[in-house]
Amino acid sequence: MTRFPDHAGVIDAARSIAAILPPTPLLPAEIGGTVCWVKAENLQPIGAFKIRGGWWRLSNLTPEERRAGVVAVSSGNHAQGVAWAARRLGIAATIVMPRDAPEVKLASTRALGAEVVLYDRPGEDRDAVAARLIAERGGVLVHAFGDPWVIEGQGSAGIEAAAQLGRAPTRIIACCGGGGLAAGLALACPDSAIHLVEPEGWDMVGQALAAGEIVHAGPDAPRTICDALQPTATKPINLNVLSGRAEPGVTVTDAEVRHAQRWAFAHLQLVIEPGGAAALAAALAGNVPLDEGTVIMVTGGNADPAAYARTLSHAD
Amino acid sequence: MTRFPDHAGVIDAARSIAAILPPTPLLPAEIGGTVCWVKAENLQPIGAFKIRGGWWRLSNLTPEERRAGVVAVSSGNHAQGVAWAARRLGIAATIVMPRDAPEVKLASTRALGAEVVLYDRPGEDRDAVAARLIAERGGVLVHAFGDPWVIEGQGSAGIEAAAQLGRAPTRIIACCGGGGLAAGLALACPDSAIHLVEPEGWDMVGQALAAGEIVHAGPDAPRTICDALQPTATKPINLNVLSGRAEPGVTVTDAEVRHAQRWAFAHLQLVIEPGGAAALAAALAGNVPLDEGTVIMVTGGNADPAAYARTLSHAD
Repeated sequence: MTRFPDHAGVIDAARSIAAILPPTPLLPAEIGGTVCWVKAENLQPIGAFKIRGGWWRLSNLTPEERRAGVVAVSSGNHAQGVAWAARRLGIAATIVMPRDAPEVKLASTRALGAEVVLYDRPGEDRDAVAARLIAERGGVLVHAFGDPWVIEGQGSAGIEAAAQLGRAPTRIIACCGGGGLAAGLALACPDSAIHLVEPEGWDMVGQALAAGEIVHAGPDAPRTICDALQPTATKPINLNVLSGRAEPGVTVTDAEVRHAQRWAFAHLQLVIEPGGAAALAAALAGNVPLDEGTVIMVTGGNADPAAYARTLSHAD
Repeated sequence: MTRFPDHAGVIDAARSIAAILPPTPLLPAEIGGTVCWVKAENLQPIGAFKIRGGWWRLSNLTPEERRAGVVAVSSGNHAQGVAWAARRLGIAATIVMPRDAPEVKLASTRALGAEVVLYDRPGEDRDAVAARLIAERGGVLVHAFGDPWVIEGQGSAGIEAAAQLGRAPTRIIACCGGGGLAAGLALACPDSAIHLVEPEGWDMVGQALAAGEIVHAGPDAPRTICDALQPTATKPINLNVLSGRAEPGVTVTDAEVRHAQRWAFAHLQLVIEPGGAAALAAALAGNVPLDEGTVIMVTGGNADPAAYARTLSHAD
């Protein structure tokens, strides 16, 4: 019943995305004497790689599904990815977002023409909110990571990076929320090692890979500044793609993430939001082996200005 | 005696630079409903476009000149451009920098292997310091803007932008210190209007264009946050290229520059230093006409973290 994502699908997604978006730059970055490559997906029009999955999913809707519109659940970047694709394709979009999502992400999603429905992160089940909306109004759910087209769309970043590098990366380091990007990259680059980086205490994908089954975040999961990397569990489709394929998961602390944000400011002139800096944080912290074929995914730059200013000032 | 820069020289420079550096991205930016194009030169390896002029000048030295080494005078970005090219070409570089240059620019220049000689900005004549060094030790002066190769090298950014746009820009908006970039762009894109943007009170090129002769900054010139845009006068070579070619000069205030830095943070995910944001500031302030063939040069991103944090927090 469920369509399974595959390498050919990622290639098709990359071709479709190349027709509407120029490649994001692959920038050299010297870390501990090794020149690695930063894939600057924060420079996408919505400030995050999520535009890829949103585009590929929505452009594969049937005419009937397009008329029904789409519903998505997101802390912010997937919201903007879906809203951007919906506007371009003339599809109505409703996005369920946590009330505590960064203001910049709420405002941008609305500016793209989507209707935003808020929920309370700790109290309400966001999937239930979305299901209720769909029962009431109809519409197709575009899951942020547990969807074959979304996975293929995100994977297109790997196809692009390999083309820019001139060869398959030896390894790709990617931040990981639910595992959509990581699964897509694993399918895109079958010969590259895939390293997932999750915030400390939110390593649901790393734990699931180790356990061989889905692991849920407990109610006592710690706070993290990586607002984009807090899904409470991965999905079977992501675990299926990643099992036996990804390297053991790696975690990073808030302090390591902030250091990476400052490093990118000083060395790359890039604004990176906390979640988008997780892979770079792991590379800088020495948590992942590096070589000259290493691609580090910098996935988003929709940072809250006040929080970013505090990070630059070492004030938190 | 003096070689005069020309379009063919800019084309040659662009070819030489394309062999060592990938093009910087040309990013769409919607300003007041018009989609313009931002040339993100802050993403160069040294964080500024000055790598272009440094490379083209140094790679045109004779073998004897290479052995003698180079001397440059710079508040920071030209310093890094020359140091980067010198390291790559195996040439000794000495850079005369103001003692109050941003710490990040001093440190980066030293990290590239150049010897830094400091001078006091108000008290000492930096050109005299450089002349004394050359008299003592020998070496070739690489002027930051009044040099034919430097002008051609900077102009290569215009060739790149036109190729990325697919046609000649209708207009190019560029920040202007001594006029090296502006002159290079004028030669690169003979069919494009060239708009120079200078900090309020430091519009020595705009004033020189209006007067038809070189104008010097007085001792009472106001403070500006654009540390990279404070040469006290343009040079004849720059004025010759720009006379009758550039549009009337435009100025921007510190407040307009800070607004542009914040706008780029939120909309482009780019870190821009004050001087590098001047052209964008003029575009956002409505000081320059905009259309869909407009290229806005974002020229540097070597921002001081504390100052940038204050700008983001509206604290200055």
